[in-house]
Parts: sequence; structure tokens; C-alpha cells
Amino acid sequence: MGGEALLRLRCASCGLVYGVEDALKSGWLCPRCGGLPRSEFSGFWDPAGEGLIRYSSALPVTPTATLGEGGTPLVVREFFGVRAYLKLEYLNPSGSFKDRGTSLTVALAKALGVRRLVEDTSGNTGISVATYSAAGGLECVITLPRTAPKGKKDLLRALGAEVVEAGSRGEAAALAPRLARERGGMHVRHTVNPLYIDGARTVAYEAFEQGFRGAHVVVPVGSGGLILGIYEGFRDLLRWGLIEELPAVHAVEDASLTRIAVRRRVGWGRGGGGAADALLVPNPPRAGEVVEAVDSTGGSSVAVTSAEVAEAVRTLVKSGFIVEPTSAAALAGLKLLVEEGVVGRGDEVLVPLTGSGLKVIDELLSLTRFESG
Amino acid sequence: MGGEALLRLRCASCGLVYGVEDALKSGWLCPRCGGLPRSEFSGFWDPAGEGLIRYSSALPVTPTATLGEGGTPLVVREFFGVRAYLKLEYLNPSGSFKDRGTSLTVALAKALGVRRLVEDTSGNTGISVATYSAAGGLECVITLPRTAPKGKKDLLRALGAEVVEAGSRGEAAALAPRLARERGGMHVRHTVNPLYIDGARTVAYEAFEQGFRGAHVVVPVGSGGLILGIYEGFRDLLRWGLIEELPAVHAVEDASLTRIAVRRRVGWGRGGGGAADALLVPNPPRAGEVVEAVDSTGGSSVAVTSAEVAEAVRTLVKSGFIVEPTSAAALAGLKLLVEEGVVGRGDEVLVPLTGSGLKVIDELLSLTRFESG
Repeated sequence: MGGEALLRLRCASCGLVYGVEDALKSGWLCPRCGGLPRSEFSGFWDPAGEGLIRYSSALPVTPTATLGEGGTPLVVREFFGVRAYLKLEYLNPSGSFKDRGTSLTVALAKALGVRRLVEDTSGNTGISVATYSAAGGLECVITLPRTAPKGKKDLLRALGAEVVEAGSRGEAAALAPRLARERGGMHVRHTVNPLYIDGARTVAYEAFEQGFRGAHVVVPVGSGGLILGIYEGFRDLLRWGLIEELPAVHAVEDASLTRIAVRRRVGWGRGGGGAADALLVPNPPRAGEVVEAVDSTGGSSVAVTSAEVAEAVRTLVKSGFIVEPTSAAALAGLKLLVEEGVVGRGDEVLVPLTGSGLKVIDELLSLTRFESG
Repeated sequence: MGGEALLRLRCASCGLVYGVEDALKSGWLCPRCGGLPRSEFSGFWDPAGEGLIRYSSALPVTPTATLGEGGTPLVVREFFGVRAYLKLEYLNPSGSFKDRGTSLTVALAKALGVRRLVEDTSGNTGISVATYSAAGGLECVITLPRTAPKGKKDLLRALGAEVVEAGSRGEAAALAPRLARERGGMHVRHTVNPLYIDGARTVAYEAFEQGFRGAHVVVPVGSGGLILGIYEGFRDLLRWGLIEELPAVHAVEDASLTRIAVRRRVGWGRGGGGAADALLVPNPPRAGEVVEAVDSTGGSSVAVTSAEVAEAVRTLVKSGFIVEPTSAAALAGLKLLVEEGVVGRGDEVLVPLTGSGLKVIDELLSLTRFESG
């Protein structure tokens, strides 16, 4: 199938370079040491066209099943005395930034002759994988905990995905690679799959082309793919001589699960978390890499409580930005960074708004009506 | 308040030119003869920037409360042997093409010092008006029939709009101008308000810049603002020497309410309609203008049944396009036009997909699961 030529990966730990077919046998991880991979290729800057395709020269795979992902608006608003450059990732085709990585993954799967994608998720990644599987004519199996919201399960089924319910998030995660093996298919595994980092790099490219030149980026951290991608995107821009220094990359976590803060030894749980549900990834494999990105740019990590997230949802929705709670976590984090003096008044800050609130209207209503006193 | 200078209107019937403050007293209609107005200004072609703002030189009002509306993807897919250029209007900030006209209306209201918008609707227009009122810091009152879907009412409330329920669609329509008068505010009245046509012109501008050069456009007709705007947008492009001829403009109606076909004396109700609910506008004031646009370009009108709409929803959603039923009516109409030989195999056709399916996930699931045999 010529998979070796289609995508090569490099282990970030031992440096082994290996082909995608080996990667699919080992759940994307390094077949020698189990380390985490990045795509191995040399990209260059030659933007042409619209959306994700515009950056094909900088991507390891050309998007072939595009639904117009990328090219999202950048809207400037003042919050807390700061100029926030809001990147409206929730206006991607399936309603979240995941579409960038998923588009690349589906293009790869099609090039490899894979006919079925399997993913474990309870949220936006599953909807994204189901949407792009539909676009690419692939079968799609999504495993998720029985407790996942009905609206999301309904949408997955409308998109033609097979939904397999498991007892817990952990069971759903264990089920996905097994189903991929048994039925023949690719386990997407977005928490490890380097194409999700590659896709997220284009958020930085677009923000740059849309005029962002600020000194700070504030990003919510779930599996870490978005923050790592944005960080690497700015590193690319630096390498290509398009910018002169990296912005400080700040990580926002849910107060109930502060894996980055703990690893950085700067903080622990504050209690009162849980609202930013997409951030509640118990053991994100790339946490160490996120810490490196934050520390190497002079960034920080902050943890937001459910009350702070609710307040940020109200602020955003009542400004016309129809986002889900996890998106609002970024704005809640920005507020803390301003209060702590890390981000100064008048500073320009890139804030990706990650997912659409149209998927969770019930939840929006209850959060926007809640008044914290 | 200097309203005369902010926007002038010209009556399409008697030619009277009048200022916006008079227009607001007469529900936008001509104060002399009650005729329908267009914006009176001379636009020119000087695209710069992104989204709706890109076409400021061709618009009567500059968008000042932008949420990044416009700049939607154009994705090419083959359906029924035809190259369909799908314009993903459902990826606008509030999930529909209405955002283009609403952005202009809110900008005008703010320039006039208006502090409150009132609109009667049961669907996308209300959500759009509530979203942009939030963006512009205006109060918003939406009147709608008690039977409107709960999800849409919830979203309106989350956006901070006051929702006033009436016994029927007719009562909601009568209530809106009264509330606007009593409480002091602008009745948006998108079925007559010419800024919704101006906003929709930019769909044609964008499709042109994105490479569409086809001979056909297929547009669902509710109040008629979208089809008229697209038609006038192409007329602008012709006038500016950017294209050499107008595409044929085809109107798609719901089979239960074929006002355009009846007026054109080419058809009557087929029965079996009702699924494309946003098309069920009983007496669209601009129906005569729509007929003129269709006839003058050599276009046609077709009426789609609920079964045809359901089939088109399945086709689109299972191709990754998460649209609401009314959006799918355009594709259902295209199919009929191909079967009738009006659109030929290999032809290039612009098809706007108007509204997001994320607002109506329940409905999507039932339609995509329904198999027509």
C-alpha cells in the first residue's frame, strides 16, 4: 500500500523514524520504546487557497476530504482591559477545532486504503471523526461511556456512525483499539496521533495571517493537541523568519484536574472544578510535552473553577459568541492571568474558542441563567 | 440623529427616496405608496479584509458589530452528475445566512442610537438578531408562536433576548411592531428590511472570488431575501464587468406552499410538503420581486415534498454537511431540476446551504433514520 511513503513518524524520545503502517500496529507509539511520535517531514511556507488546504506545503498530508475546515474568523474584543483576539474555532464544519486534525487523518486513511475509523470519545472528537468519515466515505465506529449526552449520541448516529456504549470512559478507551483490530480499521487515537498537532499548527498560521502579533496565547488543555499545535505553529513561523519571537503559551486547566500545574510544581487542585468537561482527560499522554511548551516560552498554567467557567460562558454568549463551556475556560483563564499580572492591560492575546454551544443548548441556558451572586 | 445620512431607501414601486427615520415609522415601507424599498446608494468593487467587512465598499452600511460573519467555505461535490458548489452558510456565527443582513441591521441601529431590536420569528432570524444584539450591546425582544421548538427558545434566552410567546405565527407578527412602538425600538422586519438583501449580495461576491463561474444558482425561498440578494449580487458583478452573464436563478419552494410557482403560472402545490419549515412564509411581501428575478434570468421554480427533503437531508448529513432540513431543500430542488433537464450533467451550480443542523439534532436523527423505501 506504500504507507511508508505516505507518512513517516519520529519518536520524540529515542529518535526512531518509522512508517505509518508500523505506527498503526503500535497505536501510533514508537515500536521500539513506546515514545510519543511527531510527523517526520519538512514543511515550508507557501500559503495558497482557502482553509486548511491553504497550508498544504506545511502539512505532512494533503487534505482530500475537506469540508472547508480552517479559515475561521479572528474577532478582536476587549476583555479585562486586554485586546483578546478570539479565534472562532467553533465555526469549523463539525463545530470544533478537532476538524483540522481529523481532516488530515481521514485523508491519510483514504490514501492507505483504510475503510473504517474507530475512536473513543465522549465529545467533539467523536463528532468530528464521524463527520469526516461521512465526508470521506469511510465507516465509523465511536465508543463512548453510556453516560455521554443524548444529543451527542443522536448526532453521531445521524452522521451514520455506529455508536458502541461502554460502562465508563476507561472501558470505552479500551474497547476502541480492540474493535479496530477485530474489525479491521484505524484507531484514530487523537490523544497520541500526531496529525492532530499538525492540524492545530494551522491555527497559529491563520492568526498570523489575520494580523495577530501579540505576546500571549491562552489555550485550554484537554489532551494537549491544541496547545502543542499552536506552539509548534508559532515555532514554524519563527523558523521561517515570519515572526521575531514566540508568544508566551499559557495553559488553562479545569480546577479539578491540574495535571500541568502539578507537573510544573506551581499549583494543585483548587476544588470547585468539573464544568469544563472536555478538559477532564485523566492521563493525557502528552502532558510532559505541554509542560515543556509552556515553560520554554515563559508561559504559565492556571486552573479555573466551575463558577469561573460559568461566568465566562455568560460573558461570551451574552457577547454573541455561542460557545460550549470548555471554550469559555480559555476566557476564564485569561481573567486569572490578568489578575495575577502575567498578562498586562493593553496586551494582545490569542484566545481560541474551541467548540460550539449549539450542541449543548440546554447547558448554555442553565449556565447563563445562573448568577454567581 | 442624522439618520437621513446613515441610510436612504428607494421605493421600488414609485421611486420615492426617503430616509431611514421615515422608514422606521412606516415599517420600512414607502411612506407614500406602501411599496417595497431597496437601499439607495452607489456601491463599488474594492474587496479588502475578511468576511462581510471585505465588501464594505459595496454595502450601504459598514458592519461595526461583526462576529466574523461571511467568508463561509465553498466546497465542491458531485451530486446527480452535476458539480455542486456548496456555500456553507450554516457556518456563520449564529448558524445561518441571516447573520449577513443582521450584522448590517445592528450596525445601522447602533449608528441611529437605537437601543432595542424587536423581531417576530420562529427560527433562524430570531437567533441571528439575538446573537448580534448581544454583540452590539442592544436589548432584544423576540416574539414567536408558543409552538416554536424549545431548543430555539432556550438559545434565545441564553443569548439574553426577551422571548414573548404568542398564540400563533400571525399574532407574533402583529405583536412585534406594537412592542417596538410601545417600548421604543426598531422592528427588524427582515421580510421587508432591504439590508437583508444587501447582506445576501455578498454570498454572490464570495462565490465569485472563490472561483464559481457556473450557469445556475439554486436557492430555497422563504421570505425571498436570500434569492434576491444573490441575484442582485451577480447583477453587481455583471455591472462591474467581473462576469459576462448572469447565472439562471432557480427558486425552491416547499410543496405545500408554492407562491412563486403559482404566480409564475407554472405549477401548483404537489401535496406532501411541510418539512422545509423555514420556507413556510405564508405571504412573503417580496414574492413578486422573486418571480422577476427568476424569470429575467431564465430560471425556474420547483417545489419539493417532505420525502424529497428527507432524502436530501440524509444525502447531505451522510456526506458530512450538518444542515437543517430547509438547507436540504436546495439539494432536493437541484435533483428535480436535473431530472427535468433544466440543469444538465456536468453543469456547475451554486447551492447555498442555509442553516445549521446542530440546532435541531433530534429532527436530524429522525430524518436520517427514516428510509423512504
